[in-house]
Amino acid sequence: MKVVIIGGGSSYTPEIIEGLILRQDEFPVDFITLVDIESGKEKLEIVGQLAKRMIEKAGVSIELSWTLDRREALDGADFVSTQIRVGGLKAREKDERIPLSHGLIGQETNGAGGIFKAFRTIPVLLDLAKDVSEICPDAWIINFTNPAGIVTEALLKHGVHKRVIGVCNIPYNMTQSAAEILKEDPNNVRIEFIGMNHFVFGSKVLVNGEDKLSKIIEALVNQSVDFSPANIVSSGWSETFLRAMNMLPNPYHQYYYQNESTLKKDLKAYQDNGTRAEQVQVIEEELFNEYKNPQLDIKPEALEKRGGAYYSDVACSLMSSIYNNSQNIMTVNTLNNGAIVDLAEDSVIEVNCLITKEGPVPLTVGRLPQQIKADILMMKAFEEQAIKASISGDYRDAYLAFVMNPLIKDEKKAKVILDELLNAHKEYLPQFDL
Amino acid sequence: MKVVIIGGGSSYTPEIIEGLILRQDEFPVDFITLVDIESGKEKLEIVGQLAKRMIEKAGVSIELSWTLDRREALDGADFVSTQIRVGGLKAREKDERIPLSHGLIGQETNGAGGIFKAFRTIPVLLDLAKDVSEICPDAWIINFTNPAGIVTEALLKHGVHKRVIGVCNIPYNMTQSAAEILKEDPNNVRIEFIGMNHFVFGSKVLVNGEDKLSKIIEALVNQSVDFSPANIVSSGWSETFLRAMNMLPNPYHQYYYQNESTLKKDLKAYQDNGTRAEQVQVIEEELFNEYKNPQLDIKPEALEKRGGAYYSDVACSLMSSIYNNSQNIMTVNTLNNGAIVDLAEDSVIEVNCLITKEGPVPLTVGRLPQQIKADILMMKAFEEQAIKASISGDYRDAYLAFVMNPLIKDEKKAKVILDELLNAHKEYLPQFDL
Amino acid sequence: MKVVIIGGGSSYTPEIIEGLILRQDEFPVDFITLVDIESGKEKLEIVGQLAKRMIEKAGVSIELSWTLDRREALDGADFVSTQIRVGGLKAREKDERIPLSHGLIGQETNGAGGIFKAFRTIPVLLDLAKDVSEICPDAWIINFTNPAGIVTEALLKHGVHKRVIGVCNIPYNMTQSAAEILKEDPNNVRIEFIGMNHFVFGSKVLVNGEDKLSKIIEALVNQSVDFSPANIVSSGWSETFLRAMNMLPNPYHQYYYQNESTLKKDLKAYQDNGTRAEQVQVIEEELFNEYKNPQLDIKPEALEKRGGAYYSDVACSLMSSIYNNSQNIMTVNTLNNGAIVDLAEDSVIEVNCLITKEGPVPLTVGRLPQQIKADILMMKAFEEQAIKASISGDYRDAYLAFVMNPLIKDEKKAKVILDELLNAHKEYLPQFDL
Amino acid sequence: MKVVIIGGGSSYTPEIIEGLILRQDEFPVDFITLVDIESGKEKLEIVGQLAKRMIEKAGVSIELSWTLDRREALDGADFVSTQIRVGGLKAREKDERIPLSHGLIGQETNGAGGIFKAFRTIPVLLDLAKDVSEICPDAWIINFTNPAGIVTEALLKHGVHKRVIGVCNIPYNMTQSAAEILKEDPNNVRIEFIGMNHFVFGSKVLVNGEDKLSKIIEALVNQSVDFSPANIVSSGWSETFLRAMNMLPNPYHQYYYQNESTLKKDLKAYQDNGTRAEQVQVIEEELFNEYKNPQLDIKPEALEKRGGAYYSDVACSLMSSIYNNSQNIMTVNTLNNGAIVDLAEDSVIEVNCLITKEGPVPLTVGRLPQQIKADILMMKAFEEQAIKASISGDYRDAYLAFVMNPLIKDEKKAKVILDELLNAHKEYLPQFDL
Repeated sequence: MKVVIIGGGSSYTPEIIEGLILRQDEFPVDFITLVDIESGKEKLEIVGQLAKRMIEKAGVSIELSWTLDRREALDGADFVSTQIRVGGLKAREKDERIPLSHGLIGQETNGAGGIFKAFRTIPVLLDLAKDVSEICPDAWIINFTNPAGIVTEALLKHGVHKRVIGVCNIPYNMTQSAAEILKEDPNNVRIEFIGMNHFVFGSKVLVNGEDKLSKIIEALVNQSVDFSPANIVSSGWSETFLRAMNMLPNPYHQYYYQNESTLKKDLKAYQDNGTRAEQVQVIEEELFNEYKNPQLDIKPEALEKRGGAYYSDVACSLMSSIYNNSQNIMTVNTLNNGAIVDLAEDSVIEVNCLITKEGPVPLTVGRLPQQIKADILMMKAFEEQAIKASISGDYRDAYLAFVMNPLIKDEKKAKVILDELLNAHKEYLPQFDL
Repeated sequence: MKVVIIGGGSSYTPEIIEGLILRQDEFPVDFITLVDIESGKEKLEIVGQLAKRMIEKAGVSIELSWTLDRREALDGADFVSTQIRVGGLKAREKDERIPLSHGLIGQETNGAGGIFKAFRTIPVLLDLAKDVSEICPDAWIINFTNPAGIVTEALLKHGVHKRVIGVCNIPYNMTQSAAEILKEDPNNVRIEFIGMNHFVFGSKVLVNGEDKLSKIIEALVNQSVDFSPANIVSSGWSETFLRAMNMLPNPYHQYYYQNESTLKKDLKAYQDNGTRAEQVQVIEEELFNEYKNPQLDIKPEALEKRGGAYYSDVACSLMSSIYNNSQNIMTVNTLNNGAIVDLAEDSVIEVNCLITKEGPVPLTVGRLPQQIKADILMMKAFEEQAIKASISGDYRDAYLAFVMNPLIKDEKKAKVILDELLNAHKEYLPQFDL
Repeated sequence: MKVVIIGGGSSYTPEIIEGLILRQDEFPVDFITLVDIESGKEKLEIVGQLAKRMIEKAGVSIELSWTLDRREALDGADFVSTQIRVGGLKAREKDERIPLSHGLIGQETNGAGGIFKAFRTIPVLLDLAKDVSEICPDAWIINFTNPAGIVTEALLKHGVHKRVIGVCNIPYNMTQSAAEILKEDPNNVRIEFIGMNHFVFGSKVLVNGEDKLSKIIEALVNQSVDFSPANIVSSGWSETFLRAMNMLPNPYHQYYYQNESTLKKDLKAYQDNGTRAEQVQVIEEELFNEYKNPQLDIKPEALEKRGGAYYSDVACSLMSSIYNNSQNIMTVNTLNNGAIVDLAEDSVIEVNCLITKEGPVPLTVGRLPQQIKADILMMKAFEEQAIKASISGDYRDAYLAFVMNPLIKDEKKAKVILDELLNAHKEYLPQFDL
Repeated sequence: MKVVIIGGGSSYTPEIIEGLILRQDEFPVDFITLVDIESGKEKLEIVGQLAKRMIEKAGVSIELSWTLDRREALDGADFVSTQIRVGGLKAREKDERIPLSHGLIGQETNGAGGIFKAFRTIPVLLDLAKDVSEICPDAWIINFTNPAGIVTEALLKHGVHKRVIGVCNIPYNMTQSAAEILKEDPNNVRIEFIGMNHFVFGSKVLVNGEDKLSKIIEALVNQSVDFSPANIVSSGWSETFLRAMNMLPNPYHQYYYQNESTLKKDLKAYQDNGTRAEQVQVIEEELFNEYKNPQLDIKPEALEKRGGAYYSDVACSLMSSIYNNSQNIMTVNTLNNGAIVDLAEDSVIEVNCLITKEGPVPLTVGRLPQQIKADILMMKAFEEQAIKASISGDYRDAYLAFVMNPLIKDEKKAKVILDELLNAHKEYLPQFDL
């Protein structure tokens, strides 16, 4: 069995290597190939060497290699994981700074920044999907490149390769936190998720099949417990909101339901410390310095403090479940196919699925609960437009995606920010006529 | 034939009286009864006397009466028009002032103010519908009480009387303006409308069956022509927005797509001149002073400056078309029934209909164009929640309607404004446990 | 203005010529071109000469021509009517005889025969549509080639030209009969039709907007009045059926709801007089003999006895309504677009439409009434399969269309009849690999 | 834990008792109560005594009782299984004989006979559901009373108790047969089922997640293997049918796709040996004679030859899975909820579900494959009408259910058979005004 990691020079790679090592019994990988592009060559070398040391230390029989030749790497692949960042952290910095400088949320996966991440990423991944379809047509693409939901929908709707699954660590993190609150083993806790990536809600918290949602809400009301990944700290939901919604929001919801205060907080943080991208650049530098240490032969602890922790763990579990036809339940991004009645069959949603050898099969959810229907329908229609613009490269399509996004909306500001971002990112937007 | 006017003491009544007089040949009304409530007794008397003078002057054989006994008035009615304002302009003043004082749009039909107008109005009209269903089951209710779309959906979904049509002057005004721009007779111009009341877009401007939308957009781009009713002045759409949307927005869209600038403008106006309700109170006083003049026997010109001009004209045309089974096309609020594929069959939409003796039959529209799909779906889901809360009187339902409304949204502000409005209006909200 | 008649050598052509002559004031045609294929050359000449005499006699300024060059004829066309019969009456004879010989309904538009008429016709008309789209892209194709509904759906779903409307004389005939029963001017009678071509039901019979359905049902129950075109004589519906359905069936419904007795009757007629096709061949011969008479300069009365009477009249009305943007109501075959909620938007249905310069706009119908829902949904799914097979030429697709058709259904008989028909018609089925 | 068996005097009861005994470790039942009605008193006593001996012999600690007092029995119940036959085998005999005597399929769950079984059963089970909802609201009703799909939809749509699951042995039998053909352990085989009870198709045959459908089709083509329960012997499908459908039909499909030959066969069997009901009466008598034997303390082998074998086994597995929140996959009848996109959310379908403590959660299926779409949509619409008639007791509703059923359809025969059946069964049809 062969796993190919696109964006193998990423600082996250040691986590996925660790995940594969730990699962070697149930999921016996023979080959791992790390792939990156010319500009990531140095990092790829560092990560490759570290991974090699990790495998040696673990004493497992995995053959590791790294290369800049993607097509060669794909030969014989069973799983292809994607963790790329087109334009790197420099591009992210612009996605955050430019909207903030005009008084709007500037964020890597939501609002104007998220739209531009989609614009830069989708064409690159559609191209990868073409290669996969040609070279290793039975392979599964496990996409954890953000905005994961939008990217996965673009691949499944417009790509030639249909074996694509999107993953995110939010459902995983929320489940872990719920288990902690309930003092239960996370393996016995299953949240029923409804919605789509970064806009998903938890409607039930099942422990051995019994719903403990009200206990979690009580805990949130009383102790202000948060479900937050490292880079998104939610400022606490009001009791009225939690009780009326009667569902678990995810940390990204603060951009929508606490827009003013979140923006204020983000603007202050930006003025005080610059963008999150700039901070991450520092963290990354430190990480790579650590990675270079020839003594290091395990995943460094520091990595867990980085935002995307557990992404790779989720990805490894998913690959193993597919390989073993485990028929367990995981929350992934896949085609709706009727699971949420109000959405189109070919919409990508984030929902609980039975994981089989043939991929994820969503469990039916039914109609959207009224309290989230308005926003879910709106966000999905916006996403469709963002995907359309990503592919067409049409200025008006891009403008409409901005106007349809609730974090932008203003018809005049939309143009100003759009123009500035198009200009800033033009080297990564070949589809646009700039 | 008998027409009953609920809210007969309204300052708009002379317009509807004039409309009925002018159509006497095609639509021979025998009886008109004006109905009002105790607190509107004086105004009813003034308007009744003026209407009487108007009918006498016109020399038509209409028998006019006015009464506070609604059930008696309904006896034998063929058409029942509703133009009520529960709580009067005093209540409107609060709908405008309270949200504005917290930095949100304060408006009589949109946002928090519009929701509370729905809360006060829906129970009263459901009660009327029960009377109509009992006393004059074949009569048509022509509702032009705002928020007209929400109120009509509430009546059609939850009322016992199914012959209800909602009307608004926005489509009429937009058609008039389009005709003016194109230098065409308005009777030859038909705009294809998509959406719902106060959130309707024009997708085609047909002159003798040919689409002139691009000419209108050109005119809007070049000369900043506006489609505005008297009380809503749109500040002009950008060229980018108009060309990308490729549809005609209505004036209310400024609250959504120009939120920041509109709010700024409205806040300034509020600080300078108080609420629109306060201004209207002055206008109304002047109007009633004029109405009292025993010399006055026609509709006074001043009335046209009032915001809701042409509402009554639309209502009279509609009644005549039903009576005559005219099979002409009018834009009204009625059950979707498949016309917009993306919405439920029992949603009320504002759309072009064939007007027949059996009521309006919508012309199919098909799928929502992508550029408006996000907002239309969101607004409709919000409206459903607002209707639910209007009937249940449940605090959480009301709170969710606030959170689902894009002009409120903020989970904490929603509570503050909701609480203040509930307290301010409590005498008109018997369904809430306050 | 130019009208092109594809299949101009048809015996029906004098009717359409008459229709165009009579409407010359409202619908001023300048050119008519009759088009046919090599094998129809002689008939084309005969019909052409007759049409010429008719135009001269009428004294209207229409320039008439006839040709075998279709592409040349299409140049400058505004309307293209299609009335072709691929394989001629000889092919129809097989469509009728082969199923009958195996004890199944053998009929030119229903069951196995109808499916094969679709198989032969659809590729030819898709080819025409390509020419139209290229040569006269603004022209409307008015299709009255049977099976009209299936053919129109094939063109609208799979063809490049989207201005296609299907017409049938059944709704026209039913309306005429209803008017007769009610002793009303047919112009004041409008039946609300639900369903699709040859499987349409009348749900209301409106006279000046009032529903007289119950009066018609009473008349049908008491006097066994029929709605039958010349070639389909319905044997009378039982009172129980009419009252329980509470809708008007059309004559073709006897194949489905009176299958056994209709089959018995048809088999007897076949044994006594051969197929309908053979009878029609005799009638046609007589007609053409009459047409040759140089004295004849009007449409001969004998034509009205032929089955498809009034088809052309409906087509002429339709062309005139489009030309004049009349906005009147006609029953045509067009895209559903939501009118019948239970069917796909791109299904072709037979339904009342507003006829505009931009084509027909369906009036919404809503949900299918329960009593016809089962059969309408089944028939539409069958039609989809028949269209698929018409285009793919795949044996299994064709077989499934047979098994899905309620007049065939039997998995073993389906193969026998399919094989025999494929062999019999192979010269007209280039898409099949025979 | 307590299991109540409604229709406890049924000859099937020993099977369910055996199932509960065998599962005692995983599913520790404390109490079993058998319930029957006055006329079944004697059988109840015989079965009760046998069950008691079985439990004693097994040495498990289950407390068994039997009673005619249903409400008392329901007290404290966790599971309520229903296996009733309103009117007994005498009624079934009429369901079979009357249609056959008019030359139509006469069968206990399909066609006219099946409709009348629904008419007799639905009111009785709605009444049971009311009791359950009142006395043991958390209990699950496991319905295996036929027509199981129709009955379950009636309960879920119109009953007050929502914890209802329908089971049938067809999916179980098909899976067993598939395993046999593939020489696999049935536990490793999972068929993907699409459709509804008695009209279900197998679209995939998964062995450890890999699809072996083509192997099964090959086997069916070559060796004429059948998937048949004891009382329905399918006469073999043609190669053309199997390959074109590319799905597994179930034995009941012969009534639809091999109607003529099946009817011929059934008519011959009827003339030779009388109805199946009459044969079953003999078998039952023998069975009860055996049951009476005080030496008998296990489930007699003879029972396996009875038609409904494995029903109870499926029911026991289901109860255990719910109790244990097993999250395994079973094929049951439950609310669609989007699983089959083409059907309403509240339709009951037979589909693979995840079995949880909160009941079955369907796995999404998506759109119906075209080759079965026509019939599935038709059958479901027919079922809706049959349910409507079962509840309304309206003659026209019943007649329409007959006309909508493809095994009846003929508008005149429908009345004759309906009238005869209504008369024959009138004692069990209180809802009809006879």
